[in-house]
Amino acid sequence: MIAFPLTGWIGLGSMGLPMATNLLRAGVPLTLFNRTGSRAEPLQQQGARLTASPRQLAEAVELLMLCVSDAPDVEAVLFGADGAAWGLRPGSLVIDCSTIAPERTRAFAQRLSGRGVDWVDAPVTGGTEAAAAGSLTVLLGGEPGAVARARPLLAVLASNLAHFGLVGAGQQAKAVNQVLVAGSYAAVAEAMALGEGMGLPMEQVITALQTGAAGSWGLGHRGASMLERSFPLGFRLRLHRKDLGIALAEAEARGLDLPISRLVAALEDRLIDQGYGDEDVSALARAVMPPSSGTKSSQP
Amino acid sequence: MIAFPLTGWIGLGSMGLPMATNLLRAGVPLTLFNRTGSRAEPLQQQGARLTASPRQLAEAVELLMLCVSDAPDVEAVLFGADGAAWGLRPGSLVIDCSTIAPERTRAFAQRLSGRGVDWVDAPVTGGTEAAAAGSLTVLLGGEPGAVARARPLLAVLASNLAHFGLVGAGQQAKAVNQVLVAGSYAAVAEAMALGEGMGLPMEQVITALQTGAAGSWGLGHRGASMLERSFPLGFRLRLHRKDLGIALAEAEARGLDLPISRLVAALEDRLIDQGYGDEDVSALARAVMPPSSGTKSSQP
Repeated sequence: MIAFPLTGWIGLGSMGLPMATNLLRAGVPLTLFNRTGSRAEPLQQQGARLTASPRQLAEAVELLMLCVSDAPDVEAVLFGADGAAWGLRPGSLVIDCSTIAPERTRAFAQRLSGRGVDWVDAPVTGGTEAAAAGSLTVLLGGEPGAVARARPLLAVLASNLAHFGLVGAGQQAKAVNQVLVAGSYAAVAEAMALGEGMGLPMEQVITALQTGAAGSWGLGHRGASMLERSFPLGFRLRLHRKDLGIALAEAEARGLDLPISRLVAALEDRLIDQGYGDEDVSALARAVMPPSSGTKSSQP
Repeated sequence: MIAFPLTGWIGLGSMGLPMATNLLRAGVPLTLFNRTGSRAEPLQQQGARLTASPRQLAEAVELLMLCVSDAPDVEAVLFGADGAAWGLRPGSLVIDCSTIAPERTRAFAQRLSGRGVDWVDAPVTGGTEAAAAGSLTVLLGGEPGAVARARPLLAVLASNLAHFGLVGAGQQAKAVNQVLVAGSYAAVAEAMALGEGMGLPMEQVITALQTGAAGSWGLGHRGASMLERSFPLGFRLRLHRKDLGIALAEAEARGLDLPISRLVAALEDRLIDQGYGDEDVSALARAVMPPSSGTKSSQP
């Protein structure tokens, strides 16, 4: 059995909770902080310690893992009053599994670097299903030594660890991922809308087209559920929208225009306004499909 | 060995030529008509007969296969002066591998039906690579009996025959395919532009993301070549644009708006204006990537 270091965990959302659970099950000595203490209870019953502040948490561990929603949350738990930064000892390591802007990542890492604390950005893909199964993909940025130190813990959570460069590179790769998801899911949504509208037997259409140039993970895994107007998480639409914002800002900073991603972001904004932000990102289909498939038109 | 019927073939473009070649090699007794007679020469050397008009061709065969560019071409070879319709005998079958609008397909089929001639629409996917390899996917529409009659010949050309309904259903499924290709390829193009602009090691990024929700045939098969600004056929951009037009018209007729497909169509229009219409549809990357990857910005 691997002797895992004393590890802290902050963030017990729909991704963080199953990830922390998997660490505990693998024998990682885990200390938690969570704003909503009740979220931590099942983990406490499995042996996790709970602390009263990020600072107290940081004082108790060698390695701190974060999985929160956005850069302001990362900033608050690290650098707020009683933030973890004030408790982390020199030589400790922060692994940030949140998805935030690369430049925010680099700024946080630099502030901690001044205190002798290393940083690895480790945003994940795979959604809640892969988080529960321990089969996430982790997109890594950081110094090779720091990444090597992070690997044993991340290997508990993931089936695929990919290291792309220095601090921020993991976040950059995540931005690329979200651009792919945007256009890919939107294509599936429009194709399902069209095929359904024409009255085609869509299960057979999906099977036939999936093996060719039209094939995608989204078609194979979300096409049928879109047709049923079912959008199980997965990954929240409003978080995908947030991530697309990061990608669009990175593009703009380099003089690149990404018109498809911009359009998907606008469609997602509208859906969030309509109250669908907490559905799976495949609810993008709501933007192009009529509400129900009950009124299929047959072939004219 | 299967005893194939006397078969006519019209259309020796970048898809039709390898398809007709595969039929000849499989022992199909093939008679050809082609506007550009010289395109038929290699096939004549392999035993194909050449006729002087579609009508003469039709008089010589039980089964007529078409693989031309668009509905006006289908109309011309069938119903023009010396068109095939005037030579086809009752009981014969037309298999149309062209991609045309479903309503045009149904109109052509109905006109021939009045002369006792059956119709199967059989548009293909897989591009020139699959056409040469005999591994196309054929999307079929037609009466079950007519489709059954078409299968042995189509099985020579394809690894996958999928039948979706009556005449027109194959064309409808092809429209769905082209909507998927549109958004999917556009997503890959934008993702490659962004990742390259950020200076990421894109080969590793593609490998890491391909297995997750961002994965697609386009990412796996066209991402790397887009990064090299290389757009080998495949499938011509201007033909994809034509097919998208069919899909958008089908959507509009049903009150569906497909904003991503509309945007891709507009990007393709601009590329065609700029002279890129005969490149592979992956040249869609030209719309969002700077001309050369030579000036990679490193991570800021």
